[in-house]
Parts: sequence; structure tokens; C-alpha cells
Amino acid sequence: MSATGGDAAVLLVRARDGHRGSLGRLISRVERGGDAAAEVAVLVGPDEGDAHVVGVTGAPGAGKSSLTGHLLASLQAEGRRPAVLAIDPSSPITGGAMLGDRVRMDGVASGAFVRSMATRGHQGGLAVAVPPTLRLLAHAGHDPLIVETTGVGQVEVDIAGAADTTVLVVAPGWGDAVQANKAGLLELADVLVVNKADRPGARDARRDLELMLDLGHISGLEARSGRRPEIVMAISTTGEGAGEVVRAIDAHHAAIAASGELAARRAARRRGEVTALVERGLRARAVEVLAAGPGRALLDAVDAGAMSPAQAAAAVLREVRGGA
Amino acid sequence: MSATGGDAAVLLVRARDGHRGSLGRLISRVERGGDAAAEVAVLVGPDEGDAHVVGVTGAPGAGKSSLTGHLLASLQAEGRRPAVLAIDPSSPITGGAMLGDRVRMDGVASGAFVRSMATRGHQGGLAVAVPPTLRLLAHAGHDPLIVETTGVGQVEVDIAGAADTTVLVVAPGWGDAVQANKAGLLELADVLVVNKADRPGARDARRDLELMLDLGHISGLEARSGRRPEIVMAISTTGEGAGEVVRAIDAHHAAIAASGELAARRAARRRGEVTALVERGLRARAVEVLAAGPGRALLDAVDAGAMSPAQAAAAVLREVRGGA
Repeated sequence: MSATGGDAAVLLVRARDGHRGSLGRLISRVERGGDAAAEVAVLVGPDEGDAHVVGVTGAPGAGKSSLTGHLLASLQAEGRRPAVLAIDPSSPITGGAMLGDRVRMDGVASGAFVRSMATRGHQGGLAVAVPPTLRLLAHAGHDPLIVETTGVGQVEVDIAGAADTTVLVVAPGWGDAVQANKAGLLELADVLVVNKADRPGARDARRDLELMLDLGHISGLEARSGRRPEIVMAISTTGEGAGEVVRAIDAHHAAIAASGELAARRAARRRGEVTALVERGLRARAVEVLAAGPGRALLDAVDAGAMSPAQAAAAVLREVRGGA
Repeated sequence: MSATGGDAAVLLVRARDGHRGSLGRLISRVERGGDAAAEVAVLVGPDEGDAHVVGVTGAPGAGKSSLTGHLLASLQAEGRRPAVLAIDPSSPITGGAMLGDRVRMDGVASGAFVRSMATRGHQGGLAVAVPPTLRLLAHAGHDPLIVETTGVGQVEVDIAGAADTTVLVVAPGWGDAVQANKAGLLELADVLVVNKADRPGARDARRDLELMLDLGHISGLEARSGRRPEIVMAISTTGEGAGEVVRAIDAHHAAIAASGELAARRAARRRGEVTALVERGLRARAVEVLAAGPGRALLDAVDAGAMSPAQAAAAVLREVRGGA
């Protein structure tokens, strides 16, 4: 059997038994797309079952990965089977994901399943690859499913915001809390973590967050669930506060399950997935048209200044609609 | 005359004379799109002329805005007419841009034209709005044109990377340089600025950058232009180093103009604009289909578990192609 070979149904049984290699192979198939991904999708079924999808986001350097590692340890100590899908900012040129953070995370919680997924430089790629991977992780018995993304960039923010529960991690100093607010992250957050709480400025960061929540409340910018996000202080180097973060995540989950919002968030996530798949299909068609003879002629006309980009785009769109 | 009214040709004449209000109104028309934007586009013409497009990017908190303010002051001291288009991370929910950074920048260089543009929460929006705005700024006599974006997030990175010259700003400490490398920014950078060079760790940050450039060279990850990016130390609070950054930007411009790469970058930018316009058009059609009866029925089927997201997306794509 090759390194990536094996019957999908057999791999899935082994993955449910906790065999990481089998689960890893299945995720690779989902990432590659095509027939192999479709086969996995049929086996896995249409949803995440009862698994709780948790988004962890925040600026680069806020300590998301270290904190996530401690969350894994806390969850495992409770006998749970968490998994992490870490969305790496990847190179727009090389497409490669760096592994520094992942290694650090693995060192903390060696029993958990951690998978890194590159952003792969093309819009829509992540939005298409993440949902079936979450369903696969759930089907393999993992719960909760933690999706870690950077908190800057529309695609990354959308992914974290599409979780059942979104955790925003900020670090003291450097205006991290203010930047998070500017990026619209505060409004997506269901749980706020002031990380590196042993550093100077941690209490200021908490006060900044409280103030911004107060202001948001006044101007109507409440959290989506109508609940004020809980603020938890944590120290990612020692793991202090990780248990409290887990408790806050669980409390949010219970609250939205009871209110019916959990079902609404899941429906919205499913609709977002359809939209992302449609966009990907349309983009593929646009690239195809631009690469073909007529498309190349239009681009040449733009280069020559004989046609505006808007005129060329309109011509391409007519071509796409007319296509088979 | 209303606050946004006025004949476009008249506004453009006034903008060329340095009237900021007129230029601001024209940009608003470009941002809104539609017929008013098309009218401006015709007046402005197909390209940026000789204006030099400079991207300034880096992580949140690296001091991009303050540095940009000092770049403006240095450029104005040389009798040049710079303009800044600052892409604000905006709220995915409210769509609002915060003005903190802009105010700070205006305080530094009160004579320059500075415009903030919200990311507006929809993919493709920025990629469509930025190019015609740059052409307008150039037509109004501004040069260089500085586009400031956050250095995380695919759309934002793409915009900064599409400039003639891309400046990457990193701050000491917090692993900023390593994070920038992870995000693929180092490969896009033509000029590297270690900002906040009066802080501890500035020399380490420079050494990190040198090392990563050395490693990149070994593994073939050179800067796009084949030139090793120059590293400049700067202090954004005092403006120290800003003149040197301007000199490095000008040197890069001269080098790529001489090598022919400038023309290639501009052609690539124009092609990227056509692609973004095509994608926006296709997306609009997809949203239309999803909102109509058949699209809603497909989404309902997905919600009910009767259809997979992939099946629903395939059906929508058939509908888009067949559409009038």
C-alpha cells in the first residue's frame, strides 16, 4: 500500500479508532478535491453531528497556537477527543505552510490530533476545504473541533467567524485590542482571551476590551448572539487560564444550543459552503476563458490600452454565460 | 450643488489644482461604482501614467501608518505630490472603517492627500476599487501613490504585492519578521523597513531578516525582481530613516524601469484587475441565482440534509451558465 493509498472506508474505521495516519491521509484526499474527496464526503455524511466547532483567532503573535495547545491538554484531561485544524498563512508564491507553530503545539498536547492547512494562495480554497475536513474530523470521533486562523484577512476572519463559538485572542500592549476592534473581530467574538496576562499592560488590555464592548453595546454593535462575550485572562506560556477558556467555550455552546442559535449558525455555515463552492466553480470558468484565445486577445487589448479593464471584463462575462 | 454633486470634468480640473474636496468626491464616485464611476474612468484614461505605485504593508502594530506619514513629509520636502490610499481593515458586520490611524497620519503631513478605503467585507471589492482610484490619483497629478494595507489576509497581501515597489514594515520583537516570512510577505518585499528601530531587538530583527533572505536565496525564494531587498532602519515616532526609505523606493523604481520589469508588473496588475472584475460579475450572478426560487430550494435541500453542498453548488453553476 502506498503512503497515501488504502480504501477510504477502512481508513475511516482506523481513524475512528484513533489512528492518526489514517485520518491524515483522508484529510489529504479532502484537500486535493476531485473523486477521492467526493468518496470521503459520501462516507462521512452531511454534517458535523454533535461536534462543537470552535474558532480561535487573533493577530499574529497573540499566542494563539500556544493557547490552543493548552486547550487541547485541558480537554484531553477531561477525557475529550479534541482536534485542531490550523490555517497557516502560506506563501502566495510558494504555497508552502511553515511548521513552527504546529511543532510548538504538538509539544504541549501529544495525544491530540493537530492538522495544519495551508491557505494555498487562492481565494475560496480554504472556504471550500475547511467544512468537509471538519465533517471528517467529527466523523472520526473528535469533539470539539478547533479551527485556528489569523484574525486579519477577510477569508481567515470569515472562517473563524463561521464557527459555533468564536474565541478571540489578544495580547497586552501594541494596541492589539484596538486593532482587533478595527478589524471587526470584536463583533465576531463569543469568548475573549487576554493572553500573556503576565505581561505589563494585561489589565489595560482587559479594560480596553470592556470599554469597547460597552461602546459597542451603546451603538448597537453587540455580539451576534446578543450575549456579551466573556473575558478570560490566560498565560499561554504556562497554560494558566486554559481550563477557564474551555469552561467559557462550553458555556457559550450550551447557551446557543438552548436558544436555537446553534442550529442557525450551522445553517449559515452550510449556506456559506455552497456559496464558496459556487464561487470556486465560477472562478475556474473565468480563468479558463481568460486563458483561451478570445480571453488572451482581450487581455492583450487591455495591455495595449485599446480597451479598459471594465470593457474586457464585460466581454469575458458574456463569454462565460454563453459557454457550454 | 450638493456635497457630492458637480460635473466630473470640473471636479477633475479642480483636483489637479490641488483641491482635495473635489478629488475626494471623485474617489467616492469610483468607490460606489456604476455609471458615475464609468464617467470618471473615461476622463481619467487607461493607466497611471508615470506615477510610481508603492505598496506599504506589514503586520498590525508595525507602525505602517506613522511611517507612511513621515514618508509623505519627506516626499513633500522634495517638492513631490504624494498621495496615500490606506486600506482599512473594516468590520465584516458594520462595514465601517475606523479613523484612528488616518488622523495620526494627517497630523504628520498636513499637505498630502490621504484617503482611507474600507475593505467593505466583500471579497473582490478592494481588488476592483483600488486600480481605478490609483489612476484617478495619478491623473490628479499625484506621484508617488502609496497604497497601505495590512500584511495579513490574501486580498490585502495581493494588493500590496501588485505595486511597482512593495515596502514591508516589520517591528522588533514578537517575532514580527518570522511571522512576515510565514505569511509569504518577505518574498513580495522590494524594500524592508525595520521600524521602531529605537526599541530593544531591532538589530535582532534585522539579523532575522538577513538570515531569512540568505535562506530564501539558497532555496530559490528570491525577491520577484531578482534583486535582494534593501533593509532600512527607521523610527516611526520621530521620522528617522524616512528619507532613506524614500531613497530606497526610488532606487528600486529606477532599477525595475531600466530592466523592463516595471512594464511587466503593470501588465500583471492590469490582468489582475480584469480577473477581479470578472470574478465580481460572476459572483453577482451567483448571488442572484442563490436568492431566486430555484437557488433557495437548493439551499433548503442542503439544510434538510437531502443534498450535499457540492451537489447544490453544481446545480447552481448549471443555472448560472444557462442564465440570460
